Amino acid sequence: MNGAESLVATLAANGVDVCFANPGTSEMHFVAALDRIDGPRCVLGLFEGVVTGAADGYYRMTGQPAATLLHLGPGLGNGLANLHNAKKACSGIVNIVGDHATDHVRFESPLKSDLEGIARPVSHWVYTCKRSLDVAAAGAQAIAATRDGALGRIATLALPADTAWGPGGAIARVPDRVPLKPADDEAVRACARTLARLGERALLLVGAAGVGERGAPLAAAIARKTGCRVMAEFYSPRTAGGRGRTRLERLPYATDAALDKLKGADCLVMAGATEPIGFFAYPGKPSQLKAAGCALQTLCDARDDVPAALQALCDELGARAVPPDTPTAVDLDALRRASTLDADLIGHALVALLPEQTIVVDEAVTSGRAFGNRFAAAAPHDWLTVMGGAIGFGLPAALGAAIGAPGRPVLALEGDGSAMYTLQALWSIARESLPVVVVVFANRAYRILQGELKSVGAGRARPPEAADSPRGDAHAAASQGVHAVSGPKATRMLTLDAPALDWVAIARGHGMPGASVQTPEAFIRETERGFASQGPYLIEALV
Amino acid sequence: MNGAESLVATLAANGVDVCFANPGTSEMHFVAALDRIDGPRCVLGLFEGVVTGAADGYYRMTGQPAATLLHLGPGLGNGLANLHNAKKACSGIVNIVGDHATDHVRFESPLKSDLEGIARPVSHWVYTCKRSLDVAAAGAQAIAATRDGALGRIATLALPADTAWGPGGAIARVPDRVPLKPADDEAVRACARTLARLGERALLLVGAAGVGERGAPLAAAIARKTGCRVMAEFYSPRTAGGRGRTRLERLPYATDAALDKLKGADCLVMAGATEPIGFFAYPGKPSQLKAAGCALQTLCDARDDVPAALQALCDELGARAVPPDTPTAVDLDALRRASTLDADLIGHALVALLPEQTIVVDEAVTSGRAFGNRFAAAAPHDWLTVMGGAIGFGLPAALGAAIGAPGRPVLALEGDGSAMYTLQALWSIARESLPVVVVVFANRAYRILQGELKSVGAGRARPPEAADSPRGDAHAAASQGVHAVSGPKATRMLTLDAPALDWVAIARGHGMPGASVQTPEAFIRETERGFASQGPYLIEALV
Repeated sequence: MNGAESLVATLAANGVDVCFANPGTSEMHFVAALDRIDGPRCVLGLFEGVVTGAADGYYRMTGQPAATLLHLGPGLGNGLANLHNAKKACSGIVNIVGDHATDHVRFESPLKSDLEGIARPVSHWVYTCKRSLDVAAAGAQAIAATRDGALGRIATLALPADTAWGPGGAIARVPDRVPLKPADDEAVRACARTLARLGERALLLVGAAGVGERGAPLAAAIARKTGCRVMAEFYSPRTAGGRGRTRLERLPYATDAALDKLKGADCLVMAGATEPIGFFAYPGKPSQLKAAGCALQTLCDARDDVPAALQALCDELGARAVPPDTPTAVDLDALRRASTLDADLIGHALVALLPEQTIVVDEAVTSGRAFGNRFAAAAPHDWLTVMGGAIGFGLPAALGAAIGAPGRPVLALEGDGSAMYTLQALWSIARESLPVVVVVFANRAYRILQGELKSVGAGRARPPEAADSPRGDAHAAASQGVHAVSGPKATRMLTLDAPALDWVAIARGHGMPGASVQTPEAFIRETERGFASQGPYLIEALV
Repeated sequence: MNGAESLVATLAANGVDVCFANPGTSEMHFVAALDRIDGPRCVLGLFEGVVTGAADGYYRMTGQPAATLLHLGPGLGNGLANLHNAKKACSGIVNIVGDHATDHVRFESPLKSDLEGIARPVSHWVYTCKRSLDVAAAGAQAIAATRDGALGRIATLALPADTAWGPGGAIARVPDRVPLKPADDEAVRACARTLARLGERALLLVGAAGVGERGAPLAAAIARKTGCRVMAEFYSPRTAGGRGRTRLERLPYATDAALDKLKGADCLVMAGATEPIGFFAYPGKPSQLKAAGCALQTLCDARDDVPAALQALCDELGARAVPPDTPTAVDLDALRRASTLDADLIGHALVALLPEQTIVVDEAVTSGRAFGNRFAAAAPHDWLTVMGGAIGFGLPAALGAAIGAPGRPVLALEGDGSAMYTLQALWSIARESLPVVVVVFANRAYRILQGELKSVGAGRARPPEAADSPRGDAHAAASQGVHAVSGPKATRMLTLDAPALDWVAIARGHGMPGASVQTPEAFIRETERGFASQGPYLIEALV
């Protein structure tokens, strides 16, 4: 067994079942090993950002790290933005990056780069293996490094070519997972006293692990029992939604709106949450969103078993979870007869059209903004959003989620601007015949930035407040009544209409069927067709 | 004038005439400033790798740095691979990267990242501006930092949002360029003695600046006069070629072939070249390619005026440049009647079809390998190749070269694998109506890697020699007669045929017309059509 084979065997022995790969020459021993060792399923991406974003989506659905296979420093660089997103999502990933042979790196060759330097800003753990005999052990260390309590971490293992082709060591085992920290009785009692005493002047802020099927009803029960308010953090790697699931109100993205929500809270009780901070800074506005003098009290850390802590708090308070009300169903026939296709109508239609257990990946930016609450009336589903604000997450995450949850339909909501960053994922989705329906909201603009420009372009020294999205809010900004000063040069930086992107042609070019729609009836028909096909399908919605 | 406006004005005042941009919220002040300040021409890219690769291509044609406009650490990350390539090409680039406001970065927000850490591995100069009043001066420092004698450098300027929106300082001027170091008389005389004494046992190795229209005839004259051998480095950011231009033989990419060429050389006389090092390392083969005991003697550094040093050497030796022989013209009609379309025929046809002063961007990997020497019979042209080995350089560089050399036709040679990395460049080329003909060699495989796999897959402990290309050589490897062991899993990592990429559809999706061809006649007809259109055109050649 050579070093590469010992690594493939070690991944397989420790539950790393999938490898998203974009290999080059220095990774050929790893690729060759795939046919000799019963190792991970390998999924090819034609660009490294596809590979790393897929690993993020995969982890969110499985809780298990996938491996990535990348080609030297520049290949890792191409995957960097989605590693940033995965790091912020606390997704576990084992990056395997081929590098020059250990004796070769001291010379200046074209592909020589500071691989560890590139890895470090997006990795919790970085290690360059120096001997082929150690590769299996280093692989096991990398897998172990992806675990931090309930959270996942990014581990990057650099593999010089000679450690792949030289003799390998024994298959290495990763220690069993450490059980999560149980609820801290003292913290539970203290938080119970705070919530009972302050009532609506306390706010229970719930992090990602508390918005799932187990945690959300418990958090709602605590609010019902004590009169406190309850909110979820704005971002969550995976939120359980739909009929029969308890939906927690989210802290708004916009600074002003968030300040408003947190006004009047004398204490934030933190259940796996972190202190609320603005997405961007704005002149004269605070970065910290809690009111001056507001206390922070910790029920549990995000690394801990957050649902268990919420259950303990319920028990302490004698609170009991109850099923949520069933929201009014959507009248699809009425929508079909409507005349105008816009994002609002699409949102309503999707509520009615969503198959049971769909995984929704939301990177629709301006167009998808209002969808969240409405989907309480949809079939039970999971909702994944970008966690690091770097565009290009959606299509790769849809690929990874579909691989991680076989048989479940996936709906990817994309802006036409955002989908362009990692469109190569369409090919991998088509190749793997995955049941992914992609809806592209084709407004032919960086609409979100048009709003920002309108506001800053008036020559004011201070920019406006942005709203629910990583890159600002066109609608909020426009509604402030700021007079737009957008000349031809700036406008040209924010429009995608000349030439117009033809998303059906792009999809076909990647081997994916699709259709372009401009009426409600056509949108509903094509969406039904897409889900019924149980394969890849792209719908370009001209909105 | 705010900070962003002071920067735009400073760029314009110092000859930075073009900005390749993919802006986000934190760059909106810069975008807004474009309409108020008579600044650089802004070219929008829909992915950051397009932006940075375009800046590389632009510099190679103009010798002037372009600016890039990028959105925080992850946006810079997306541009990293092509910055790596640009750094290895010694192209000058001013990266302007928006960041969070200075008071905001201490908090954990989704887009917070180690921006300087991401920038450092691909930058010679990294600076975060802290005050809006200093932005203009920092911009001037960044421009100055792109200059290192005859070479260009990568300068990355991080601009926290508050330094863009706060009050700006006065427009700053960059000092005049320092004149290049003239030829060192002593070095010239010493090198002249070596070459005259050793004759064919000396090898004059010429770096990038010596392969242009001025340097190459001088180097050839020196060889003629002294009997020494002369070679160019394998890689060069820009090589002048075609009829009437002197073409220097290149040092081979493949380690074995390069060792062979350097055997018998007792001294390498270096004219702006660096010591020859293998692209990859292989077991039992040296990284350093010169023969044991071979001396290195420096005529001049790559930072110096290499053609001037070659001229001085000619003068010292009494050598005189003569025009090269005119090679035999290609019979296009005979090619038109041929039955099989393959890379070889395409190469011959392009020699006949190439318009005067075409800029050829070569990222055809396996398919374009044999083109180099043959193009001596083509019309005068410039030839650009990737310098850092990171795939995804070609289409962005074609965009940047076309912007940098208005009116000149551009021919981009792409593999179907390589073109996928930064295909979004097609849209920018179409939008700017640039005369770029793209030829995609559609072999529907990572053909270069298939060769590597065949070799390493046989279970031998040592990999084979690779040949003329960053990722190995299918043909060379296959011809070694190594028995291939490529099972279904490995094969699946190296083929792009299921589904097949449809490059005409992909082009149409990006607003670019095109055609798919499978016969010599069709290839010639469509290439003529493409060049005649003087606009963007893509030809998918099924080879």
